[in-house]
This record gives sequence, C-alpha cells and structure tokens, in this order.
Amino acid sequence: MQQGRTSPPSSSPTAQCPPTTDCLPLNGLGAAASGSEASRQLQKQEVNSHRLLTELSRMSSMLTFYLFYLLSLILGLACVGCVCVWNSRWRGGFDWDGSALEFNWHPVLMVTGLVVLYGYGAVLYRIPLTWGQNKLPWKLLHAALMLLSLILAIVGLCAVFDFHNTHKTSNMYSLHSWIGITAVALFAMQWVLGLAGFLLPCSPLTLRKLLKPVHVWLGCSILLLTVAACISGINEKLFFVLKANSSGAQPYNNLPPEAVLANTLGALIVAFGLVVLNILLNSNWQRPDSRPENMTYTPLLQEENE
Amino acid sequence: MQQGRTSPPSSSPTAQCPPTTDCLPLNGLGAAASGSEASRQLQKQEVNSHRLLTELSRMSSMLTFYLFYLLSLILGLACVGCVCVWNSRWRGGFDWDGSALEFNWHPVLMVTGLVVLYGYGAVLYRIPLTWGQNKLPWKLLHAALMLLSLILAIVGLCAVFDFHNTHKTSNMYSLHSWIGITAVALFAMQWVLGLAGFLLPCSPLTLRKLLKPVHVWLGCSILLLTVAACISGINEKLFFVLKANSSGAQPYNNLPPEAVLANTLGALIVAFGLVVLNILLNSNWQRPDSRPENMTYTPLLQEENE
Repeated sequence: MQQGRTSPPSSSPTAQCPPTTDCLPLNGLGAAASGSEASRQLQKQEVNSHRLLTELSRMSSMLTFYLFYLLSLILGLACVGCVCVWNSRWRGGFDWDGSALEFNWHPVLMVTGLVVLYGYGAVLYRIPLTWGQNKLPWKLLHAALMLLSLILAIVGLCAVFDFHNTHKTSNMYSLHSWIGITAVALFAMQWVLGLAGFLLPCSPLTLRKLLKPVHVWLGCSILLLTVAACISGINEKLFFVLKANSSGAQPYNNLPPEAVLANTLGALIVAFGLVVLNILLNSNWQRPDSRPENMTYTPLLQEENE
Repeated sequence: MQQGRTSPPSSSPTAQCPPTTDCLPLNGLGAAASGSEASRQLQKQEVNSHRLLTELSRMSSMLTFYLFYLLSLILGLACVGCVCVWNSRWRGGFDWDGSALEFNWHPVLMVTGLVVLYGYGAVLYRIPLTWGQNKLPWKLLHAALMLLSLILAIVGLCAVFDFHNTHKTSNMYSLHSWIGITAVALFAMQWVLGLAGFLLPCSPLTLRKLLKPVHVWLGCSILLLTVAACISGINEKLFFVLKANSSGAQPYNNLPPEAVLANTLGALIVAFGLVVLNILLNSNWQRPDSRPENMTYTPLLQEENE
C-alpha cells in the first residue's frame, strides 16, 4: 500500500523525465538526484506511516485504559452499594451504641475506605487526562483521597473494637484481624512516608528515587492484604450470623438471599482489586514522567506544567 | 577523580611537547591533535566508567533478586512445613476415608500446590542463571511445575468434596469456596492456554504476542485469588474447630498454640505471595527476551541457545 504511492525506483529514472527535457539514460547526475528525491519521499512516507501507527497504538491504549478505568469506577460503586444494602437491609442498619448496629459500620467503612477509595486514589496518576497538567493538584488529590481512605479505615476499626469491648469479646485473635490490622498499619506508614518523601519540598531527590518503587510495590501489597482481609471478614461474618434457628432463619449453607448478596460483594471486591492492579501494573498507562526510562524526580515546589 | 587522570586540556599543548621536538606554541595542528587525543581519552574513560557503573548496577540488581528469591524459597518451605505440622500434629493426620482426616489433605494440598509450587513455577524465568541458556528446558519445567501444582489443587478439591459428600454437607456455598474454585478454574484455563499458546509449535506468533501480557496478568491475579482463598479458609477452619468444650479445649479467641500456628501460616502465605509478586513485577528481573523493549516471540521449536 505504501510503496504503491512512492516514486519509481532510481533504476528507471527516465520514467520521470518529461519529453521536452534533454535527459538521457546515461545522465547519471539526474538519475542520482531523482533517486535521492524518491528515496527522501519514501523515507518521509515511512516516517508518516510510523507516526500514524504509533498514534493509533497510543489511542487504542488510551481507549483500553478508559474502559478499565470505567470498569473500576463501576465495580467500586457496586462494592459500596452492596456493602451498604447488606448492612442496612439485612443486618439492621447503623448506630454507635456498642451494639451489632455499631459493628455494621466496620464492613461499610473498610470496603468504602480501604478498598474503593484506596483503589480510586491509587489509579489517579494513570488517567491520561492528567498527564498534560501540573502534577501538584493531582498529587494533593491523591494524598487527600488516601487520607480520607485511612480515616474511614481507622473509624471502621474503632467500630469493631468498641463493639468487641462492649461485649467483652477478645480483640485481634483471628487471622482476619491480623491481616486487616497489618494492612491498616502499612497503609498509615505508607501515607506518612509518601507525605515526607513526595509532598514535602525539603525531601531530597535521592530519597524520592529510592522511595518511588517501594511506594508503588507497597501500594499494591496493601491492596492484596485488604482484599484478603475483606474476603476472610465477609466469610467469617456469614458463618457467625447465618445459622438455622427456631424462627425459620436459613443457615449459610442453604445460600439464603443475604448469603448470595454478601458472597457477590466478596466477588466484586476481588474483581475491583484485579482491575485496579491491572491498571497499576500496565507500563503503558504510567504517567510519562514516572516511567522508568524517563524518570524525573522533581521536588513538589519545582513541579512544572508539562 | 576521572579528570585527574586525563591529559592536560588543549589550551596548553606545550606542556606535552618533549624538548627535542619542534613544536611551537603556534603549532595549531599539533595542539588540535593533542586536544583531540585528550578528548578521545576522556570519552574512553567516561565510557569505561559508565560501563563499570552499569555493571555494578546489574550486579546489585542480581544480588537483590537472589535475596528475594532465597526469601521466596524459605517462605514457601515454611508455609509447607506449617500446614503439614498443623494438620498432622493438631488435626490428627491424614487418611482418605471421608473423615476429617481426609479433609486435612485439603489445606495441605492447596497450600503446597496452589500457593507454593505455583509461586516457585511463576518466578522460574526470572532466575538470571537461566537467561544465557536455551529457554526450552525452562519452559518445560515451568509447565511441569504448574501442572503438578494444578494436579495437587484438584486432588485437594476432591478431598473436600468427598468429605462434604460423606457428611451430607453442602458444597460451594461459602465465599471461601467461590473464590477458591474461581482460582482453580482460572488456573486450569491458564495452563491450557499457556500450553496452546507457548508450547505448541503450531501456535502463531501473533497469538503469542497477544497472549503474553494476559498470561502474566492472569498469573498474578490467580496468586491474589489463592492468597485470599487461603486466608479465608484458614480463618473459617479455626472458627469451626477451636471451640470451648467440656474437655478443656480452648476457643479461637483465647489464641491457643494451634491458633497461633495457623495464623502464622496465614501470615507466611501472605508474605510469600507479596515476595513472589515483587519478583514478578520488577521489570529489571524479567528475562531479557521477555522485556517489552526487546520482545521476541519464537515458536518453541525455533528456540535458540542465547
């Protein structure tokens, strides 16, 4: 296709000579000039078609990103919707009185904060729309979303500790609680290190350079921990509350509607985690100034409009 | 340091002239030649120091890899040790008679197969020792380890289904089972697609190119699913079996030694998963012919000794 639009090759220069000019088959200079012109045109067309292919590939990559991003937004909202419906419709709603209604804040706040807001905050830099703009507002939004996520998670922990203490139940004995508290502790550490390393103008460039891959890896690790904590928590809760009794309640193994809803919530959390991880790990979707081959670490107050 | 070993700059060429030669301050050609020589030497030294730095960086990267790889081996063995001790020492050992002793195969085979062998198989290509060698034997070893892992997981599933059927207990109702069965189903699909796409000589290059990132992402996703399934499974099992009774058994919330051991197993599984994910996701540790900038997709029978 491309070659069909190029000039004839230099081996047949006469084909380009108009009949009025005195060009001969032996006119080497003319042939060379003509060949050189054809070669230049060919090169130009090749460059253009390469540019076109690169642009198409870039647009296709962006389109796929936005599809995954939309999917993450929808899955996140579905998680929040599911956990709210489960605890308001099937578990009696919310209160802050040490009762089971206070416990209900725990799953809602952990899923909303530690999973969904955390995931939304994590993929923020991957949105191509933000790449041409000053990084500072996005950095602040990333930090703010993560802080809000952390606060919700801490309030969610307070709810479960308060509920346990009111009912004289032990804290921190189950594997679910071990994994969950590790996730929140690492998250708090990650936020403080992120603030010190990437937001404070006094942080040295070498620190940022060292911190960046650790920050990304720890971010993915926290997501894995929170997904594992959520799955074990929902599973544990359903075994606790769905038991056959004299009032005709169905046990978990009969898969009553509440069990289907909560199991679906678990599946949605896993799907959300996988989509977020996929967005985070695709090197094509990294902000250009954050890619390894083009790594620049400018202190916050030196950020430029790129 | 580097400049201290270079020749003097061209602005003072006479400093290099031996007294017997007829070089004059105005000997521009000699000065230029001397300056050019100095410049070449400077360039050569810069190239050498760049090479040295690159080599040091490569060695440091390899050393870090082997530390993480050793850690993954140790954590994997610790997981297998813990799950075996838990089920043999605390849960009564193993049998295949539909009793709880048959169930005990379930955690042992899932942790050994779906977590540890799977993780060992996944990081195989990252070992720098294998990079200079023919890829085929490593490809076959990767496929064989994954097949063994899949077989162990399927036998582990048979153990729990047989136990449930013998005791007329429902199957596949808990969130743990939903996540676990999804992990095994995806793993089986991944193995078949991997065989068809990367081992059969007839598979087209375009298919391999499309399949490769999906294969890597699905591999990481399966690991996340198995970790979540293991954590919820251990948590569930401990709530089932650790209950206070008349013979003085301690409940889970008293954290008896069995609970500490099984919780530690859960923590080890998470740590193993994170280390394996870290190895898989570090672009410096990818086999050179698998890196995006140097992607080659040769059918199996065309593999060369590289």
